[in-house]
Amino acid sequence: MSAQSPIVEGATALIGFNDLVGLLHAVFVKHGTSPEVAAILAHNCASAERDGAHSHGIFRIPGYLSTLASGWVDGKAVPVVTDVASGWVSADACNGFAQPALAAARALLVEKARSAGIALLAIHNSHHFAALWPDVEPFAEEGLVALSVVNSMTCVVPHGADRPLFGTNPIAFAAPRADGAPIVFDLATSAIAHGDVQIAARKGERLAPGMGVDSLGQPTTDPKAVLEGGALLPFGGHKGSALSMMVELLAAALTGGNFSFEFSWADHPGARTPWTGQLLIVIDPSKTAGQRFAERSQELVRQMHAVGLRRLPGDRRHRTRAKSELIGIEVQAQDLAQLQALLAD
Amino acid sequence: MSAQSPIVEGATALIGFNDLVGLLHAVFVKHGTSPEVAAILAHNCASAERDGAHSHGIFRIPGYLSTLASGWVDGKAVPVVTDVASGWVSADACNGFAQPALAAARALLVEKARSAGIALLAIHNSHHFAALWPDVEPFAEEGLVALSVVNSMTCVVPHGADRPLFGTNPIAFAAPRADGAPIVFDLATSAIAHGDVQIAARKGERLAPGMGVDSLGQPTTDPKAVLEGGALLPFGGHKGSALSMMVELLAAALTGGNFSFEFSWADHPGARTPWTGQLLIVIDPSKTAGQRFAERSQELVRQMHAVGLRRLPGDRRHRTRAKSELIGIEVQAQDLAQLQALLAD
Repeated sequence: MSAQSPIVEGATALIGFNDLVGLLHAVFVKHGTSPEVAAILAHNCASAERDGAHSHGIFRIPGYLSTLASGWVDGKAVPVVTDVASGWVSADACNGFAQPALAAARALLVEKARSAGIALLAIHNSHHFAALWPDVEPFAEEGLVALSVVNSMTCVVPHGADRPLFGTNPIAFAAPRADGAPIVFDLATSAIAHGDVQIAARKGERLAPGMGVDSLGQPTTDPKAVLEGGALLPFGGHKGSALSMMVELLAAALTGGNFSFEFSWADHPGARTPWTGQLLIVIDPSKTAGQRFAERSQELVRQMHAVGLRRLPGDRRHRTRAKSELIGIEVQAQDLAQLQALLAD
Repeated sequence: MSAQSPIVEGATALIGFNDLVGLLHAVFVKHGTSPEVAAILAHNCASAERDGAHSHGIFRIPGYLSTLASGWVDGKAVPVVTDVASGWVSADACNGFAQPALAAARALLVEKARSAGIALLAIHNSHHFAALWPDVEPFAEEGLVALSVVNSMTCVVPHGADRPLFGTNPIAFAAPRADGAPIVFDLATSAIAHGDVQIAARKGERLAPGMGVDSLGQPTTDPKAVLEGGALLPFGGHKGSALSMMVELLAAALTGGNFSFEFSWADHPGARTPWTGQLLIVIDPSKTAGQRFAERSQELVRQMHAVGLRRLPGDRRHRTRAKSELIGIEVQAQDLAQLQALLAD
């Protein structure tokens, strides 16, 4: 961007996936990550942007850079993978991001799942600041079923309690199917994802009722009131709350990671990334008795359409992905300029 | 019960746990199960009644007997257990109940979980007509973490669809803790459990809004309209619906069982039990890096209480259990008389 081409507010630009990955890679390296970590985070972030998952796309970059600058997370951490048992891989992210730990443990995890039928990866001492579906979708693309949970930071009031304790604690699931993209969903166990509250605040929009409370614990539809001392509610009342509790147990207690309420970034101004744990369970459905799993999941999808369902979980992402692959990823010209400015000395 | 002691409507009686198990065992055997199957179902059903989980207690007996009389389920089936892989046990319930298949596979499943760190049991060709928490709670009592899902019969409209497809598809979870009963929950992914709709209909009570639709697909609070051609909605909108879809994939596609929409009991008047599949995943948390799981889960409970939570999932069941163990299980005298009458020639 030069002074000769001022950016019109609201104007959009198109950028190819590889170009966006390259730009993000350069930004991460310049701001303190190793090239290896940069490659993984850039691919993750560009994938979200490509799929229209804006709350986890380039919108996240200022948060990444702020947390790196604060010294709260180690952008050059080299994860340590341990082969614990025939179905159990453990990864210490060494105060780095969770995704490089998954990448480092992935081959061993898949090998164990294919041999034993099921295996888990327990990541601890990790920071997860991205969407969860990119962690599970690739397993389904190679014929495996994957489930992942990650806890985050205290911002959700357990159903029946007075004050927040749980994180947004998402659950992501992916399964292969015969005639199409994998079946994938990624849902926060909070009534709304934290990133979507931030986006609503930025856009000046209100939240739907039942999503959050203000700093006094009173119901509010103001995203700023939620972000400034308020808190979120679990989805689906006591049931979503029970699932959020399960995520704390699986992602933290079972991995050796922190609960969402156990870390404080008070001494690290600018820190943004929850320092917790993550669990992945991977299953090889080729062990299923007498049936081909991918054909069975295809049959379920066929019947879901037959009862009038127009949109499967993940459909909108895949449509946006197809469009992005055809014409490029549509981003705000202003956002792109800001990314490029991050490379300037 | 004799003619000399007429039963006052609404009167209650007390019965000891072992006496109730014995009575139910005799009822099951008399109505067509093997002694082995009777022992398992009687213990399951009496446990629900003891814990105050009335929708899965002796309330279920007429349904059990009706389905046995119809020839739809084999009350004498002997399950076939297969050792598929180091983390995978498969059980063919042979058109019998799911609980005897779990009992037959349990020792092998626990052995694999303790060795590999995680193992699954895939049950198919099975009928599940009970609560799901009795299947997972015993694992937590011996220090293991357990998760189970079971699909049922078409009665839930997927979010965004017009007609029902999914079952009530519950998810149950159990985890040990250091200073108290295990943390256990069992939640239908429908907005309300089918048994609770039946109980509301029997009592003449209305349902809360958002639970179900009538035979024309219109919202209703009349439990009879839901039961007579209507359907339930998933809990928590698209999120509960996604979880219900996951249950179909894990409990049916992954086990080799039927989807909730794949069987028809039209040729078996009186049939009540869904003929599907069930998945259990069991994890040995002693493999967790550097921490004792049960102490960590205890810490989570402590913090949940500290933010004002008065009642944990399962607390009410455990309080009722303690009372039942002290003074006996409180049942309607009329219900007890009806059970005893089932033993008459």
